[in-house]
Amino acid sequence: MSFNTFGHLFRVTTWGESHGPALGATVDGCPPGVPLTEADIQPWLDRRKPGTSKFTTQRREDDAVRILSGVFEGKTTGTPIQLMIENTDQRSKDYGDIAKSFRPGHADITYHQKYGIRDYRGGGRSSARETAARVAAGAVARAALAGLAPDLRITGYMVQMGAKVIDRARFDAAQIQENPFWCPDATMAAEWAAYLDELRLNHNSIGAVVEVTASGVPAGLGAPIYAKLDSELASAMMTINAVKGVEIGEGMAAAALTGLENADEIVMGPNGPEYLSNHAGGILGGISTGQDVVVRFAVKPTSSILSPRRSVTVDGEPLELVTKGRHDPCVGIRAVPVGEAMMACVLLDQLLLDRAQTGGVRGQIG
Amino acid sequence: MSFNTFGHLFRVTTWGESHGPALGATVDGCPPGVPLTEADIQPWLDRRKPGTSKFTTQRREDDAVRILSGVFEGKTTGTPIQLMIENTDQRSKDYGDIAKSFRPGHADITYHQKYGIRDYRGGGRSSARETAARVAAGAVARAALAGLAPDLRITGYMVQMGAKVIDRARFDAAQIQENPFWCPDATMAAEWAAYLDELRLNHNSIGAVVEVTASGVPAGLGAPIYAKLDSELASAMMTINAVKGVEIGEGMAAAALTGLENADEIVMGPNGPEYLSNHAGGILGGISTGQDVVVRFAVKPTSSILSPRRSVTVDGEPLELVTKGRHDPCVGIRAVPVGEAMMACVLLDQLLLDRAQTGGVRGQIG
Amino acid sequence: MSFNTFGHLFRVTTWGESHGPALGATVDGCPPGVPLTEADIQPWLDRRKPGTSKFTTQRREDDAVRILSGVFEGKTTGTPIQLMIENTDQRSKDYGDIAKSFRPGHADITYHQKYGIRDYRGGGRSSARETAARVAAGAVARAALAGLAPDLRITGYMVQMGAKVIDRARFDAAQIQENPFWCPDATMAAEWAAYLDELRLNHNSIGAVVEVTASGVPAGLGAPIYAKLDSELASAMMTINAVKGVEIGEGMAAAALTGLENADEIVMGPNGPEYLSNHAGGILGGISTGQDVVVRFAVKPTSSILSPRRSVTVDGEPLELVTKGRHDPCVGIRAVPVGEAMMACVLLDQLLLDRAQTGGVRGQIG
Amino acid sequence: MSFNTFGHLFRVTTWGESHGPALGATVDGCPPGVPLTEADIQPWLDRRKPGTSKFTTQRREDDAVRILSGVFEGKTTGTPIQLMIENTDQRSKDYGDIAKSFRPGHADITYHQKYGIRDYRGGGRSSARETAARVAAGAVARAALAGLAPDLRITGYMVQMGAKVIDRARFDAAQIQENPFWCPDATMAAEWAAYLDELRLNHNSIGAVVEVTASGVPAGLGAPIYAKLDSELASAMMTINAVKGVEIGEGMAAAALTGLENADEIVMGPNGPEYLSNHAGGILGGISTGQDVVVRFAVKPTSSILSPRRSVTVDGEPLELVTKGRHDPCVGIRAVPVGEAMMACVLLDQLLLDRAQTGGVRGQIG
Repeated sequence: MSFNTFGHLFRVTTWGESHGPALGATVDGCPPGVPLTEADIQPWLDRRKPGTSKFTTQRREDDAVRILSGVFEGKTTGTPIQLMIENTDQRSKDYGDIAKSFRPGHADITYHQKYGIRDYRGGGRSSARETAARVAAGAVARAALAGLAPDLRITGYMVQMGAKVIDRARFDAAQIQENPFWCPDATMAAEWAAYLDELRLNHNSIGAVVEVTASGVPAGLGAPIYAKLDSELASAMMTINAVKGVEIGEGMAAAALTGLENADEIVMGPNGPEYLSNHAGGILGGISTGQDVVVRFAVKPTSSILSPRRSVTVDGEPLELVTKGRHDPCVGIRAVPVGEAMMACVLLDQLLLDRAQTGGVRGQIG
Repeated sequence: MSFNTFGHLFRVTTWGESHGPALGATVDGCPPGVPLTEADIQPWLDRRKPGTSKFTTQRREDDAVRILSGVFEGKTTGTPIQLMIENTDQRSKDYGDIAKSFRPGHADITYHQKYGIRDYRGGGRSSARETAARVAAGAVARAALAGLAPDLRITGYMVQMGAKVIDRARFDAAQIQENPFWCPDATMAAEWAAYLDELRLNHNSIGAVVEVTASGVPAGLGAPIYAKLDSELASAMMTINAVKGVEIGEGMAAAALTGLENADEIVMGPNGPEYLSNHAGGILGGISTGQDVVVRFAVKPTSSILSPRRSVTVDGEPLELVTKGRHDPCVGIRAVPVGEAMMACVLLDQLLLDRAQTGGVRGQIG
Repeated sequence: MSFNTFGHLFRVTTWGESHGPALGATVDGCPPGVPLTEADIQPWLDRRKPGTSKFTTQRREDDAVRILSGVFEGKTTGTPIQLMIENTDQRSKDYGDIAKSFRPGHADITYHQKYGIRDYRGGGRSSARETAARVAAGAVARAALAGLAPDLRITGYMVQMGAKVIDRARFDAAQIQENPFWCPDATMAAEWAAYLDELRLNHNSIGAVVEVTASGVPAGLGAPIYAKLDSELASAMMTINAVKGVEIGEGMAAAALTGLENADEIVMGPNGPEYLSNHAGGILGGISTGQDVVVRFAVKPTSSILSPRRSVTVDGEPLELVTKGRHDPCVGIRAVPVGEAMMACVLLDQLLLDRAQTGGVRGQIG
Repeated sequence: MSFNTFGHLFRVTTWGESHGPALGATVDGCPPGVPLTEADIQPWLDRRKPGTSKFTTQRREDDAVRILSGVFEGKTTGTPIQLMIENTDQRSKDYGDIAKSFRPGHADITYHQKYGIRDYRGGGRSSARETAARVAAGAVARAALAGLAPDLRITGYMVQMGAKVIDRARFDAAQIQENPFWCPDATMAAEWAAYLDELRLNHNSIGAVVEVTASGVPAGLGAPIYAKLDSELASAMMTINAVKGVEIGEGMAAAALTGLENADEIVMGPNGPEYLSNHAGGILGGISTGQDVVVRFAVKPTSSILSPRRSVTVDGEPLELVTKGRHDPCVGIRAVPVGEAMMACVLLDQLLLDRAQTGGVRGQIG
């Protein structure tokens, strides 16, 4: 509801700027008694952290998380959990150039117009560094989900870089951890590597599409109308930096389907209803069906490039602006763990909301 | 925040079922002193109402709105505005068949699983009839915006039906009101008419893409992180029945662009900064730039078709289900005024939020 | 969060003015499957309705409630419940005098100052008629509580009128329904009757204190810090018209106690911990103990009296104002069922919140 | 809305436990451009901090605040402000005794029952140390109010300790800073000193009443029904540790008044309407009148006393419990700056809400 808070019952408020002393997440509403230590959170942060390959920013941050509250003797107490990550490798001098000019494609100009003041160092609040706090919060959500929905598995991966789309026939989940692109298609991963190298050398950048799936989601999460699970997920993913489109199931491609093609026919399986397809992405009428929940989002190309672009200064003077600093040539790569974290936060929040209203009791079929 | 409430300060709670006595919207937080009568709301409802052409459901509803509160002597008082629309043409007997079985692609099964009870008549709460309440609320938002942002114009139209996409070179805003598809491309409108006729005769249906643009949006609306204008719009559009994807500006296509291509370069114009392109869809860092805000959403094909699809009953018995009743062959058509209404609600809400935090004062450029 | 919405998960939005066509409550978040008909709500409204004795306003309203949505075949569906009460006995001409002047002690002047417009007829939105909507919503809450906390009992009564306080030694719950004052002390009820007759004849009015208790509240409702059960109840009661003070347990009298006196000592009983006293009013650290929850609130004397008071017109002219119309000489009387309704709404909301976060599992003792 | 968040637009989420590494407040929604440094916050914390006289706990905490985000070059940026206070003088061993038993009058037992786990050290989250975070947040609110409502002045003081009430005839605002009780009556301050000394020696404690007034509050803050300014203030004050009653204006005493006595008559003054009295405490119909806003709250006696009280262990065994540790004999004293902070937070929040809905335009009188 607030500008920097996400969630209804499992509520995450992130804070902090790219070049301030620290950033973090205030996580409120977590169930009590959830086993949680810093060691449960750190691996997820390590997946997102910069400098892990030549394809991401060379800023070096340990992204070491500290739990300052809400955990006692290794378990959550039900009170707010403060997660803090100190910034250690700020090079603010890189950003002196943009104190008085606006990088095209960035929030520089809109923050200035809205607030009349901005922390220009590294993009300040608009920096992708904020997503570290989300990943930390997502790790808390995962810890709680481990108890509440033990079969739930969240998997994120990149399915497109530029115009280069993976071949679904080559989809191999085991490959996702094996390349720097979280790519489930080994052949495409190699192609992307060469492509991105070339783009970097040309001082250019590229967009991407990330897909996040959740299996083992109980039927019944979500709600009609304004709390549809689709809407919650769309909202969550669209808050990630540089995201410009969100799809559930068939997504935009649903427009090209007929009703006959799009129908997910239902049959009875051994444990209840099953579907012969999943065009819906696991959600009907805003409520989960028990199938895999499938979300995709498009990440625009990094706006910070070493090629000159036309812009203006705060005084209205024209200039050709080259964005220095250490930037990701394809910011979609590091958006993968962020998308997973948002999925975890949304699903836990919805699980708690559902438990509140229905007590988790389900209408039977068969 | 709640399941049936949308908005932060301009808050719309819709209520009512397809075949109940009435439905409506409780609109809270409207500024006081806004001129408003039922005659200001009715024309917008008439645009959405069923039965206006052979391409929409033949259910006949006047959709006559009554203002029950919050308006005194033709002006809003700042207290809640209750908008009620009585249902008059319910044919509940059409739906006896589905009392104990689940239409594929519908919320029947998930409502049953979540709540253990559902008003099956016409889809109950999940019916697209709910969107009448949104359109009424959107008309209130428009009335308030007329005073607060007099240059603001919201325009919705269909840009794709099935695989048939409009030709942007033939875009003519004047055409939008001239055909039953809100299509800005007269040639394509004719093609769609023939195509939809054929689909209907084949007991089939088809998806669509709707685009809604807002011009005259002041720079500075929205906020960082979880209240990004993109995210608010994505959330709003994704709550509309049958929507499966939402795009801002380039949307999913941003993935295929390079940083050089995607940059919206900035120059100074006579009244402040101007942009040489609008890949961003009028939003940078979650905050409006002053350019046109551009949103697109995909509407899946109507799930209710006269062709048999496999499904199960509440007792787990298999059946072949044909959905009778009066249905839209392309529900995307009637989603156009709904998308406009959601745009109006979001923009007013954001305008109030911005006025609260910043007082509407803007950082100057030049 | 919104101006006219109360509650977090069980959310009640009331709407309507004293002399408009109707008023009501939009109730969202009710659990599904709760048996509910208009006949379950009406008796509670009848307790509050005007004109039942010579000690309340002589306005005649049936206060007949209609359920417009959210209930199917006698059970709640989990979707929003719209409760509408039509106004039938408006005598707006009584209020022409105050269209341009401000009754002392009323919201006339502040509504004018805030909104620049007000529905002056009968106080418009600030009328105590709004509380009918709360009582209707409270009846829905009671229906849900009957399933979720079957031992819960809510009892409201008046304990003070003017300086005349009941004698707790004569407290007899059976008396509460036996007199027009909801007074548990029959002797005092008689005294109040004579006193109030005299006040009415003197064109005067009087304040009161109402106490509402809830027994059978499970331990564990509420939360630390900003969602303390005490705070939720204080907020709820303070929203009732004319309430100027709220107390939990000892309330303001706690200031005069020592730590030795105020300690509620704990012993083990057959079913868990028991307390030797209840100074705390059933709440420790913001969370219910399982003892009776005890709330009291003071209702100021009716501001509408037939005696002239100094005031001003909208043009700033002085005048002596006599408030005509049909008014309660002791508005505290009709606040009793309203206080009960608020208690029901708060407890259900807290029960749902607790179920969300903890699953209703409790730490054991013994 | 959330358990640990207070406010609608100016939102404060506090976090941290008494004996954890740190505690703090995440402040979201602050207007941009407000001058703010740690030096603006520290003096308010110093007023509340422990160990300043023999009448407060002897725990020694510097309560040094750090601003971790949201401020750039000495001004707020409109993004979340993280305020952190490190704990330095924890003596957790003092609390080993209560790890498995419940102090009467404390949250020990209810936290255990609700969450099944609790940080028992110093009361964990239920400790009054949490109020340091509120005072820090209140200092931010004051900084913003300095620009938005420059005439606003907030003054808190104690008006009652035990049965000893100040003499309003001796009220001298200048005295408030001159004694350790924030007492405006110098004679009573001396009496309290002797009284509290005696109570301490007897291993006892005592309750108190705190009054907080705000002058210079613009007319028009607050809203009808569920966002009444009275209700917001009651909610805010009731969230303070140990508070059991809240009053606006006459408060509970309003019950004993007649309508004739209670009417605040209105006359025209040089700058608009004026009132001949202030029984209403500056609020009519939930909206500020422009008079002083007057709130009082009762603080129960400290439950932690050195005298033995009966209780039980987590295993259900009876025991006589003496609460060691370093405790305030009259916790009401340190509640004074906390009450002021809550008043500041509520008024800023309401000011922003009002600006959102009405634009701050006021209906004229005269």
